[in-house]
Amino acid sequence: MSVIAVDAMGGDNAPTAEVAGALAAVRERGCSVVLVGDEKRLREELRAQGGAESDRLSLHNASEVVTMKDNPGKVFRKKLDSSMRVATDLVVDGTASGMVSAGNSGAVLSHCLFLMKRMPFVERPGIVQVFPTPSGTVAMCDLGANVAVTPTMLTQFGILAAQYYRILHGKKRPRVGVLSNGTESSKGTDLTRAACELLEGAAKHPQAEFDFVGYVEGSGIFEGLVDVVATDGFTGNIFLKTAEGVSEAVMRMVKGAMTSTPRAKLGALLAKPALMKFKQSIHYSEYGGAMLLGVNGTATICHGRSDGRAICNAIALTNRFAEERLHEQLSQAIDRHQQLWMATKEEESA
Amino acid sequence: MSVIAVDAMGGDNAPTAEVAGALAAVRERGCSVVLVGDEKRLREELRAQGGAESDRLSLHNASEVVTMKDNPGKVFRKKLDSSMRVATDLVVDGTASGMVSAGNSGAVLSHCLFLMKRMPFVERPGIVQVFPTPSGTVAMCDLGANVAVTPTMLTQFGILAAQYYRILHGKKRPRVGVLSNGTESSKGTDLTRAACELLEGAAKHPQAEFDFVGYVEGSGIFEGLVDVVATDGFTGNIFLKTAEGVSEAVMRMVKGAMTSTPRAKLGALLAKPALMKFKQSIHYSEYGGAMLLGVNGTATICHGRSDGRAICNAIALTNRFAEERLHEQLSQAIDRHQQLWMATKEEESA
Repeated sequence: MSVIAVDAMGGDNAPTAEVAGALAAVRERGCSVVLVGDEKRLREELRAQGGAESDRLSLHNASEVVTMKDNPGKVFRKKLDSSMRVATDLVVDGTASGMVSAGNSGAVLSHCLFLMKRMPFVERPGIVQVFPTPSGTVAMCDLGANVAVTPTMLTQFGILAAQYYRILHGKKRPRVGVLSNGTESSKGTDLTRAACELLEGAAKHPQAEFDFVGYVEGSGIFEGLVDVVATDGFTGNIFLKTAEGVSEAVMRMVKGAMTSTPRAKLGALLAKPALMKFKQSIHYSEYGGAMLLGVNGTATICHGRSDGRAICNAIALTNRFAEERLHEQLSQAIDRHQQLWMATKEEESA
Repeated sequence: MSVIAVDAMGGDNAPTAEVAGALAAVRERGCSVVLVGDEKRLREELRAQGGAESDRLSLHNASEVVTMKDNPGKVFRKKLDSSMRVATDLVVDGTASGMVSAGNSGAVLSHCLFLMKRMPFVERPGIVQVFPTPSGTVAMCDLGANVAVTPTMLTQFGILAAQYYRILHGKKRPRVGVLSNGTESSKGTDLTRAACELLEGAAKHPQAEFDFVGYVEGSGIFEGLVDVVATDGFTGNIFLKTAEGVSEAVMRMVKGAMTSTPRAKLGALLAKPALMKFKQSIHYSEYGGAMLLGVNGTATICHGRSDGRAICNAIALTNRFAEERLHEQLSQAIDRHQQLWMATKEEESA
């Protein structure tokens, strides 16, 4: 039975959202959770929300809190009793099978990187997240952990995210693409061209579990051309925030258009239930947060502004990946292409 | 009186769209146009569309056509009588005040770069385009001309696009930002951090005509935080195509939601006129295409799939910028910061 450690003091709405999310995950999704943070405050919050400790919902005290002001690269060594550090330690020592945090995302990254450690052969862990498109969800990696990357890292992001996608959607061979400014192989940068060569080679491995489709453009992602997109953390982060910004802006402008005339207003009234359902279906809280791939453990990074529903979905997702032993599958996928990393290393040092 | 040269053989719908656009620009927008291409074919097309040559609509023969298969970097030297080359030459020799092409965009870029030449002190010309947000239009540069850039180039893209925005919207001091993966100054890459320093310095110039706001995220662009965004051509192109892809996807999904129940369908029927109007308002054809900034001439690059309306808007926009002497204003703006480029050059060679 997996237990998920939740950093209960991290998000903008902590610990209310974390407690609400944990209660819902235990009651509705059959998860086991340990809430990490100020035990007294958590107990009060639990009571206020009509919940209580149980064999599937426990509290673990931590006296400190990582804030947005803390230096992400140093705080894991300084605040040894923060809720984030203790939640990470619970995964490292095997007490918990995975962790969830809506706190300072750079700090979550450092905690996982330095305490869980990288998987063998993984150059850098990457952040993966799925998002909705008209033809299904697409996973992108990296979304912001690494702004400057090498071709090997980009290749590994593609392979790691493909495994993640396989487990999430049961698709045997996800189609992997590299985000670029055009589909012709002459497009892109030195980095993307080199990564394409490596991914092309990796996909030819007899035990490869993905297909490589080459370059994909920002628009192609929404046209069903790929399941998985590999990119650097700078570009990926801009992609993600642009997609969020545009979809919010379009919905806002649609709303404006639908209240611009009396006739449209009546139409809006009739269409409202369907539109609200759609709006909820593409809301980030449905997607359970971003996951860090390439460390020895399962960790989900949530939006700082996560509400109880988002935390609940994140716990359920983390639990699912922990039970499917995601990180072992990731490790095997990276191992499979060991020769690729070796060859690249030799080339680099030659 | 300005005359705009139109490469009439370039786009996917050439010469039908180009002829339709020219006719509309002459009749409805008071422009003067010279259509460049196969004179016989253009005359037939004009007649078929109920138009004719006049003192404001002339034809200029060109026997060759630049295709998508032509090498953008070489074709301007090989097809000396292509409609694209001849249209560019008309601007270079002063017969026309600006040009419009919906042809191979890489080739348009090379023609302008090698025949019109770069402005003094401009390291690389950049492609600028405006797009709609709920709080007004935003201009971004570069959108794909340069995938690998220096801090000086990024700075120049910001300054050039700010001048473009000033003329387009009459805003005295547009707010310029650098696209990044976060707003804190520690975010971004070595490139973006260096460009921020240069832009900060440029904005302090007593005759600066823009304000610098620092980093802007993909989401911030749609929240009214900036008027102008400076970025490299790789990231800019991904931004643009992502924004297009997402807005099309959301509109498609909204349509799906609004036909998902009988009640929503009725609502959709009532809201349709308002929604169609909104959809048109954000359509690329309304925005007159992308413009190349930093060459000695005014040139607009249209979508290959441009229809007559898009070409007409592009001609009107080019005409407006030609009459406002955009490229002189751009040149003055770059001159103003001469010392900045000098200092950077010295640093680089030190």
